[in-house]
Amino acid sequence: MTATADANTLPAHYIELTGLIREASTLGSVGSLLGWDQETYMPPAGGPARGEQAALIARLTHEMHTAPRVGELLSACESDADLMQEGTESAANIRAMRRDYDKATRLPGSLVAELARTGSEAQDIWKHARAKSDFSAFAPALTKMLDLTRRKAECLGIPEGGELYDALLDEYEPDARAAQIEQVFLPLRDRLSVFIADITANGTPPRVDFTRRAIPVGRQHAFGQAVLAALGFDFSAGRLDTSTHPFCSGISAGDTRLTTRYAEDNFADALSSTMHECGHGLYEQGLPKSGPHAGTPLAGSVSLGIHESQSRMWENFVGRSRPFWAWALPLANQHFDGALSDIDLDTMVRAMNTCTPSLIRVESDEPTYNLHVMIRFGLERSLIKGDLSVKDLPGAWNEQYRKLLGVEVPDDRRGCLQDVHWSFGLIGYFPTYSLGNIYAAQLWETINEQITDLDAQMARGEFGALLSWLRENIHRHGRRYSAQELCERATGKPLSADPLMRHLERRVKPAYGL
Amino acid sequence: MTATADANTLPAHYIELTGLIREASTLGSVGSLLGWDQETYMPPAGGPARGEQAALIARLTHEMHTAPRVGELLSACESDADLMQEGTESAANIRAMRRDYDKATRLPGSLVAELARTGSEAQDIWKHARAKSDFSAFAPALTKMLDLTRRKAECLGIPEGGELYDALLDEYEPDARAAQIEQVFLPLRDRLSVFIADITANGTPPRVDFTRRAIPVGRQHAFGQAVLAALGFDFSAGRLDTSTHPFCSGISAGDTRLTTRYAEDNFADALSSTMHECGHGLYEQGLPKSGPHAGTPLAGSVSLGIHESQSRMWENFVGRSRPFWAWALPLANQHFDGALSDIDLDTMVRAMNTCTPSLIRVESDEPTYNLHVMIRFGLERSLIKGDLSVKDLPGAWNEQYRKLLGVEVPDDRRGCLQDVHWSFGLIGYFPTYSLGNIYAAQLWETINEQITDLDAQMARGEFGALLSWLRENIHRHGRRYSAQELCERATGKPLSADPLMRHLERRVKPAYGL
Repeated sequence: MTATADANTLPAHYIELTGLIREASTLGSVGSLLGWDQETYMPPAGGPARGEQAALIARLTHEMHTAPRVGELLSACESDADLMQEGTESAANIRAMRRDYDKATRLPGSLVAELARTGSEAQDIWKHARAKSDFSAFAPALTKMLDLTRRKAECLGIPEGGELYDALLDEYEPDARAAQIEQVFLPLRDRLSVFIADITANGTPPRVDFTRRAIPVGRQHAFGQAVLAALGFDFSAGRLDTSTHPFCSGISAGDTRLTTRYAEDNFADALSSTMHECGHGLYEQGLPKSGPHAGTPLAGSVSLGIHESQSRMWENFVGRSRPFWAWALPLANQHFDGALSDIDLDTMVRAMNTCTPSLIRVESDEPTYNLHVMIRFGLERSLIKGDLSVKDLPGAWNEQYRKLLGVEVPDDRRGCLQDVHWSFGLIGYFPTYSLGNIYAAQLWETINEQITDLDAQMARGEFGALLSWLRENIHRHGRRYSAQELCERATGKPLSADPLMRHLERRVKPAYGL
Repeated sequence: MTATADANTLPAHYIELTGLIREASTLGSVGSLLGWDQETYMPPAGGPARGEQAALIARLTHEMHTAPRVGELLSACESDADLMQEGTESAANIRAMRRDYDKATRLPGSLVAELARTGSEAQDIWKHARAKSDFSAFAPALTKMLDLTRRKAECLGIPEGGELYDALLDEYEPDARAAQIEQVFLPLRDRLSVFIADITANGTPPRVDFTRRAIPVGRQHAFGQAVLAALGFDFSAGRLDTSTHPFCSGISAGDTRLTTRYAEDNFADALSSTMHECGHGLYEQGLPKSGPHAGTPLAGSVSLGIHESQSRMWENFVGRSRPFWAWALPLANQHFDGALSDIDLDTMVRAMNTCTPSLIRVESDEPTYNLHVMIRFGLERSLIKGDLSVKDLPGAWNEQYRKLLGVEVPDDRRGCLQDVHWSFGLIGYFPTYSLGNIYAAQLWETINEQITDLDAQMARGEFGALLSWLRENIHRHGRRYSAQELCERATGKPLSADPLMRHLERRVKPAYGL
């Protein structure tokens, strides 16, 4: 990394600018705590007041980010040739601050308010429509949200060489373009579809019955904590709690909070959720949040895709591997009072690598998950383009599920009404889930080339070398590089879905005796 | 209560003013959540970032409270004869907002910052000096804090007919005057001193050994929760957690959080803490935080003395009473797996009403507690007046303990270095502890006159009539009246310490066979 001039020689306009952004970031971190608390410990009747607190913090944070003084200082920094020298941290930081500032100032307040209000109403309408599996009840609200979202994309502006959808995508995966993603997704989609059809037709499904044995929640929690501690999650700078929907909140330097959920009869699912959130948490704990870049973009995560690559790596590439279970199965048995003592390692590993086409994304397994995501990517892109009308959405959805997953969608509740995202305008978000898997697979191949005995280490419960590699190659860079650049610097190769296919072949086929 | 004109007819300047104050209050409530989280769930490494978050929220809240627009609107409201009509809610609200505004604007920012910085340093010095029982190491820091605190009092201004100390007292017990408090405290002090000497000399100490039996913390927690639910604490709008020092935080409408602490070998102490904080919490849950006064002074608590009267009432007047234990002893036994099955009601009640002069305020029992407080009140008042110099403090302290409690102070650690308050300038706070006991006793006599079968109700575990009385006569008024007015309206009598002495006579003497 090219060094920046040290802090003593940084010009006053850069110091003032980063100071203002740091303050906005501190206020934003307060908003994160409000959100965490709401999902974990807030009593039910605290909801309305919490809504007011969150709205006020969001408004004040936005005011700080869009203050005219920030704009003035940005311009001053941009005309400072020393600061903007190619390859310096200051140049990367200023470019990121410019991007954030433009994004924040380009949306008129009235549109932000209308999106929030309409989105909140539409989410409510969606909830009822889904319960009654009545798409027609949701269609008008979705149409309205799509119109507003298109207007939002127009305000943000079409990125260079892109399409309208890219303006939305750019919020979650900066610098990504739908057309480039399509080039990676399309061949993967077709190969996955064939792969899954082959397994479904020719494979012998593994035993999974024992994963539904009753394990008291307290025992599962203790096991999960023991696993996270071994993976390297720093509990002196973080926590693990429970919530309805698992999440990770990187509140501040020294304060990263994970949640998971437990069902007595599904310890494997709980462990996967816990390890998934831990992957996010390890990334947050590895970002350069203290030190010279504290509170500035350089201290932040680069994209949702990279964030997801970290969660997926620990959940799937580590957590469904044979070496991991060689270490974790005896540990689980110990915590579960011998409840798995009749299960051998092969049986355990096979059960963790199933492949069953199904209707619901959030319940799907590792190989089929990506098809759920790609279907949504294609459909939402067409909706924004105007190639697909809202009234034709259910038909298009069902056709894709038939064609790619081989399943018949019996009703819209288990079809195009299943996800909350579109109801509040979250469009451009879905592809980051599969990008995460693709990044993870590509990183994983490089890691295994460079840490040649990683399997042996994992089988001993040692994950330090893996975490150090991620710290060095991913975490510490924060937002310095774009996601694609970062991945290419770490692996030496352009983005490709080949590693993901190789990974799935190696993992899933043996579980089905193929 | 005289009705205010309804919201439709309120003038724009009043609506705008209360809107601004409500927003500041919402931001303040975010600060409360930060504080609660810091004491309960925040991971240790989160401390430095939490300090920045808390400082930022405090600064922004202060800026909102002292905005020039607030001053303009206050003046406009004060010249509006309709709003200021005697006896109306709007007049009470405007007077309270004026008081808050003046307090907030009278202190120069530089003094606030110096108090915070010096107080933080002095607290650190105090901690070390206490550990080494070395008053001379603390004396220079205390001298500095007293000088700053006197300057603060001068900026706030001496209240009408008062002394410099009253400017400080007024922050915690608005409208109270040291001279008036002294008139109530002095005779109480002398009567208590005689009372305690009599018991010490002539009484037979009750059995307390069984209160130190080992009860698992989980069982104590379940018992505490069952008791709070019966007292009327609304768990859908509140929580009970644990922290090093128990506290209650009334974060917002619908969100009141209590903490307590447990030791395996002291269930009685844990229950007292829990019931004490519950008393604060019931008050917070009964304040008019929703509705037309939301976020304005009228929705707040009137004074620390009244707040403490609520905690002390549930802790002592209820929680050490025979009827309470007639209900609670079987319940405790049930939760404690029969650990108290050999203890009869009389033995239990006697153990809850001990009287043993001791050195440490926070470990003292109900009757001796007030002497600890009054000694501090007299000394801090003399320090502010200049009648007592810092170097003479230990001698004066020890003399008071000898004279009033009959104990010899062996070292300053167990003497004038025991409390944290003075180290960061918390002067004028101590008397509110005893005021709380005095208010509670006076209210308690009236309550028992009006709810004639209260004892029978409590013995059945019914506390609804008691809570309704407090809701009606204390809680719902918020800050509408001063503490003394409120107490006089509720009891029909001016403040007197006689009820407290009668209460202690009735409770404690029988426990000592007198």
